Amino acid sequence: MPRRPDFSAVGHSQPRLDGTDKVTGRSLFTDDVVLPGMLCGRVLRCPLPRARLLNIDTSRAEALPGVKAVVTAQDAAGIWLGINQPLLSPEILNHVGQEVAAVAATDEDTAREALKLIRVDYEPLPELKDMKAALAPGAPLLHAKAKGNIAWEQADDHGDPDAAFAAAHHVRTDHYVTNPTHNCYAEFHVAVADFTRSDKLTVWTPTQSALLFQKSLAAGFKLPDSGVRIMCLNSGGGFTGRTATRPHHFLAALLSRKSGRPVKIRATGDEEFIMCRAGGRVEYRFRSGVDRDGRLKVVDADLLFDTGGYVESQMIVILLTSSYLDALYPVEATRYRGRLVHTNNLPYYFHHGGGLAQFQFAFGQHVNSLALDLGMDPVDFHLLNAVEKGHTTLRGTHYASCGLKECIRKTARQAGWKQKRRRKEPLKGIGIGIGAMASGAKGLFKHDTSAAFIKVGDDGKATLFVGLPDMGQSSHTAMAIIAAEVLGIAPTDITVASGDTDLDPLDVGAFTQRGTFNTGNAVKNASLDARKQIAKTAAAELGVRPSQLKFSHGQITVKNQPDKVMPFAKAVFNTLHSQEGRFVMGRGFYNSPLESGSMAYSFGAQIAEVSVDPDTGVVTVEKVTAAHDVGRAINPRIVEGQIDGQIFSGMSQALFEECVMDDGQVLNPSRLDYKMPRAWEMPEVEHIIVESVDPHGPFGAKEVGEGPIVCTMQAIANAVADAIGEPVTEMPIAPWRVLKILGRRKDVA
Amino acid sequence: MPRRPDFSAVGHSQPRLDGTDKVTGRSLFTDDVVLPGMLCGRVLRCPLPRARLLNIDTSRAEALPGVKAVVTAQDAAGIWLGINQPLLSPEILNHVGQEVAAVAATDEDTAREALKLIRVDYEPLPELKDMKAALAPGAPLLHAKAKGNIAWEQADDHGDPDAAFAAAHHVRTDHYVTNPTHNCYAEFHVAVADFTRSDKLTVWTPTQSALLFQKSLAAGFKLPDSGVRIMCLNSGGGFTGRTATRPHHFLAALLSRKSGRPVKIRATGDEEFIMCRAGGRVEYRFRSGVDRDGRLKVVDADLLFDTGGYVESQMIVILLTSSYLDALYPVEATRYRGRLVHTNNLPYYFHHGGGLAQFQFAFGQHVNSLALDLGMDPVDFHLLNAVEKGHTTLRGTHYASCGLKECIRKTARQAGWKQKRRRKEPLKGIGIGIGAMASGAKGLFKHDTSAAFIKVGDDGKATLFVGLPDMGQSSHTAMAIIAAEVLGIAPTDITVASGDTDLDPLDVGAFTQRGTFNTGNAVKNASLDARKQIAKTAAAELGVRPSQLKFSHGQITVKNQPDKVMPFAKAVFNTLHSQEGRFVMGRGFYNSPLESGSMAYSFGAQIAEVSVDPDTGVVTVEKVTAAHDVGRAINPRIVEGQIDGQIFSGMSQALFEECVMDDGQVLNPSRLDYKMPRAWEMPEVEHIIVESVDPHGPFGAKEVGEGPIVCTMQAIANAVADAIGEPVTEMPIAPWRVLKILGRRKDVA
Repeated sequence: MPRRPDFSAVGHSQPRLDGTDKVTGRSLFTDDVVLPGMLCGRVLRCPLPRARLLNIDTSRAEALPGVKAVVTAQDAAGIWLGINQPLLSPEILNHVGQEVAAVAATDEDTAREALKLIRVDYEPLPELKDMKAALAPGAPLLHAKAKGNIAWEQADDHGDPDAAFAAAHHVRTDHYVTNPTHNCYAEFHVAVADFTRSDKLTVWTPTQSALLFQKSLAAGFKLPDSGVRIMCLNSGGGFTGRTATRPHHFLAALLSRKSGRPVKIRATGDEEFIMCRAGGRVEYRFRSGVDRDGRLKVVDADLLFDTGGYVESQMIVILLTSSYLDALYPVEATRYRGRLVHTNNLPYYFHHGGGLAQFQFAFGQHVNSLALDLGMDPVDFHLLNAVEKGHTTLRGTHYASCGLKECIRKTARQAGWKQKRRRKEPLKGIGIGIGAMASGAKGLFKHDTSAAFIKVGDDGKATLFVGLPDMGQSSHTAMAIIAAEVLGIAPTDITVASGDTDLDPLDVGAFTQRGTFNTGNAVKNASLDARKQIAKTAAAELGVRPSQLKFSHGQITVKNQPDKVMPFAKAVFNTLHSQEGRFVMGRGFYNSPLESGSMAYSFGAQIAEVSVDPDTGVVTVEKVTAAHDVGRAINPRIVEGQIDGQIFSGMSQALFEECVMDDGQVLNPSRLDYKMPRAWEMPEVEHIIVESVDPHGPFGAKEVGEGPIVCTMQAIANAVADAIGEPVTEMPIAPWRVLKILGRRKDVA
Repeated sequence: MPRRPDFSAVGHSQPRLDGTDKVTGRSLFTDDVVLPGMLCGRVLRCPLPRARLLNIDTSRAEALPGVKAVVTAQDAAGIWLGINQPLLSPEILNHVGQEVAAVAATDEDTAREALKLIRVDYEPLPELKDMKAALAPGAPLLHAKAKGNIAWEQADDHGDPDAAFAAAHHVRTDHYVTNPTHNCYAEFHVAVADFTRSDKLTVWTPTQSALLFQKSLAAGFKLPDSGVRIMCLNSGGGFTGRTATRPHHFLAALLSRKSGRPVKIRATGDEEFIMCRAGGRVEYRFRSGVDRDGRLKVVDADLLFDTGGYVESQMIVILLTSSYLDALYPVEATRYRGRLVHTNNLPYYFHHGGGLAQFQFAFGQHVNSLALDLGMDPVDFHLLNAVEKGHTTLRGTHYASCGLKECIRKTARQAGWKQKRRRKEPLKGIGIGIGAMASGAKGLFKHDTSAAFIKVGDDGKATLFVGLPDMGQSSHTAMAIIAAEVLGIAPTDITVASGDTDLDPLDVGAFTQRGTFNTGNAVKNASLDARKQIAKTAAAELGVRPSQLKFSHGQITVKNQPDKVMPFAKAVFNTLHSQEGRFVMGRGFYNSPLESGSMAYSFGAQIAEVSVDPDTGVVTVEKVTAAHDVGRAINPRIVEGQIDGQIFSGMSQALFEECVMDDGQVLNPSRLDYKMPRAWEMPEVEHIIVESVDPHGPFGAKEVGEGPIVCTMQAIANAVADAIGEPVTEMPIAPWRVLKILGRRKDVA
């Protein structure tokens, strides 16, 4: 990474501000919350994939000494999750582990005992084991409004796909499958709920969006938004798994309201796999056409998403995947059909990348195969086709900055792509994956606002208030760097305050990779507001105009007058300790001026090198070369960390992770049985940071929160195909799937 | 109280916003703080009034299982409290209960056991039992720099007192004594300290000034101010008892640093009486001269304050009492001498009223006697002499508003003063006391700034951030009312956030009665800033100019156009959910433009009616009629509550409270033995609120935090003198003191 002498904070690697507390175990998480009189809550769950609730008798549980509250469907009337799930269904249950009742007791043993004392009579109903069963004629309907068990459908053309296919030189069709996964954040689901007054509910919980949690709980309990206070001390990861409230948040609150005491519900290891709701199974069909020169002209995609027993916000995955058909290549036409299908599986939502990483596992392989069909080097294919700065997609997305081709070129050169492709070794393979990712996306509300507030103390140290949660992505440190750059002080001089909706400035949340871009812009604006107040003092004391001042390295200097200088802290001190007595406080916000979508997109390319063990079918990722256009690297080391984390998770999903389902049951519901690689299985990674300096980003920055993972799985899959001579079309690329192909293709082993 | 139809929030009684949580026990206090791994800290104290520390052996305590840290003087080197007290003295100990060592252990039993295992060898030294002993020639010197054991002395003339005395028609001299008291807040001293990093100390504790606590601990531990975070959940009273850090704050922090764990130190009942440091013994000599018409011309005061073994900020009591000589009457000249005297008593500071309530017990009786000397009705004397609006004192204090004469007139009329004085009954008495009190006072720093920040959510509810602690005076509710008045919404629509120096806007604190005036002005400014942003939206939608809008009763209306109206919440919603996407945030601050002193003074007069039991000497306060000029009553019910609380405390001090000292020991160190009245002993109170509408106060408001108590003790003392024919010159007016006089004066019984 080139150092930028013109910046004193941005672009200089800064260890996470919360790093020491995290590694020494001093950081507090929700499970550390202990309140006077707090009860332990536990949940009774349905053991069947589909059943009718005939009768529930809680009298023996209620009589157990130490039990303070038991709630069933009648306590939860009117509370709905998402589109069609009652919090506690009074009649039909649609998945294994669905919540049936909950208890709060003085201790965990009593709560567990109370669950055993609740007697429930179920009538098993015929189940929908998978999407095939759900779509079969005459299949039982899970929800009256979901005709044919289709919970949501989007089908649209852009351009004239039929004409484009007719004109195409070559057309190819492929089918792919990705299987359900768990988000695998480090911290299990947990919530402490406290109805301190009948109109004030406080909930401590990890979250990616305190605002969405607040609005959801407020709606459920019919309170104004301000009647719900979300407290997020720290979040042990998110990966899209904490964007929405889950039943345990409501159940803890119901139990608190009924008992008049705070209630904590903490998921056990196996419950975690029922509650996670990451990506479900997806079946993809792609058909695309290219012209004689290898230009991609038209894409037709048909996708089926298993949404399980209920639907919440999974339609977003349809929105995102449909927009990806023309995101990377300037195609003439697209056709898209996406359907959410109800089954009696868990109501899965989506995983890190909003479903796009899985989508690109499929689409990236499809495009790779298209290039090979034409005898083209996939890198050349991408370079020929990739979008560039100034391009506007069929759907109207405009790229004000775009380093995609630079990423492709640099990663290919750095990885030695051409040479390695030439001197092909048996059972070794190399593959490329490319991607784009929005930096924030308006659509949930009319606004996509982030706000920030900063106060500067008379020791020159500042507190920066943001509503953006940091669930491990180090965004708080990035925010401190942005504020520090504006004020010309060190990021370590800034304390980032966040995690309390009563206090935080508004922020839509940490999803759609909006943090660095949206909240970063808000932080920049708030810091500029504060700087103006300090500049007034400094300018008066130095006898110059505020516009002549430069804030840098803890000093306020005057442009072209090197003798005039004043420490930042002194200027702040003098602003307060003065006749005016001004305390420096800055406020700012940012909202995308677009009606919908995003102002900025990041781009990336990754090249994976793998080797395959012919005896076991095990794939080893030897190296990943990753080039990412992040606009501007606010904190280069963390940008690399984000890339590393996503490569690790992408590799994990590509090769290992799968919630193995049977009859609606997760068969491997533990961190022992659900396979993930260990730290030492991390491949060597070479990072190439491309800075296209987006005109709208804070100091030019764009997202790096989900962009990298979108490239990883396809790169690995293409490398495996390169190694074994045939694509693996179902994820994960488990050893048994590799062995199946190797058994067929003795030529490569 | 007259209702003011032009205000929708100010002047309307509003129950405390935290009232429900307080009375239902939901409010959290420092002792509710439980942190992972938290240790119990306890303090080893000196049993002697003066001693040399010969040797201390902590080895057996350190070896006790469960003990995680022991600290002695060597751990505390360089940490000083106030002017001359080392946190842990390595050699000389100057009062009973002085801190010698501290331990932190996994539980309280182990901590207590560890204290017993510390062996200390003391050499007793000759002690200074009282001020007489301290001032005697040849007395041992407690501190080398305090010549003659005088820790601090102020002596000054204003005008020409000698000439004024020479010209006086009548001169009178009196002597008075007030004895040491305890602040008697409800919550004992407690602190949880957590050195989360070597450069970050967090301390949970009740406080009246988080800023002063932060600066004090930062100085002690050589950290920048921002390296110390003060967390004040709720404070169970203060009464000047929580303006400064005490040894336990530092000891908890030292123990935390040494053990690497959070440490809680909680005072026991008897420790509380050693740690409280309320008012010490004061001896007063007054000599004053009046002219032929009864005009007070000159006052000469000589005061001795027992400051105990050490001195911290007690010089403030000298500053305050000296300023009081010309505060109430436009005298020609004053002479003042005040001395802080070191003894081996506890290092007392001062009580509610900063020493002025005790001072007025004495001076108010002195003036009353002067009037009676002249055959004047004391009320007439006050009415003749009292200061008025526009007056500037000898010391330069200017009264921009002053309702003192109105208070005297109204209270006299309401109490039936003239009639009751005429039909005098035996052993019944009536007495008047008057007072003035600053609303904030610059002097501690160059600024006396309060800052505020407000955010308004899209449901129209706001969070108001202030650094002003509410230790029971209901100032947070007052702040909410001020913000509500500006925004035209209900105070209950506002959440007040406070109690965390990392987050709070700067505020010097809750002392010198600066809350309503200073912080209130800051809140008003912040709210106006927010209103402007909302007005922009509303004006655009209503098609008018922002200046035409009126915010009231949750509605935004247009002056003189009654059909144009818009709900406040809708205007805020539309400000956010708009093309601009603005999140409403307002910031503001207030700083007195004066170099020192106060912009506004409140005034008051109280008339007490008492009866005396001739057999027991017990004084019963039958009724108090209290008129107070508070500028503007922001929350009338709470203004009355503040008056009630101070009348109760004033009566308690006047008649009951005394830390009985012997050889430096408190002989009555418990809430059982330290006498206070019970709730049912509260006299009937009639409240008269006078609103002089100060030009600088928020909506005209001035303080009501300490003004009332200044009037109470003198009124009761004067009433007792009226009942038994002779003043009781020593406080408390305990039964035995009354009986002593009754024994002499058979005429009145």
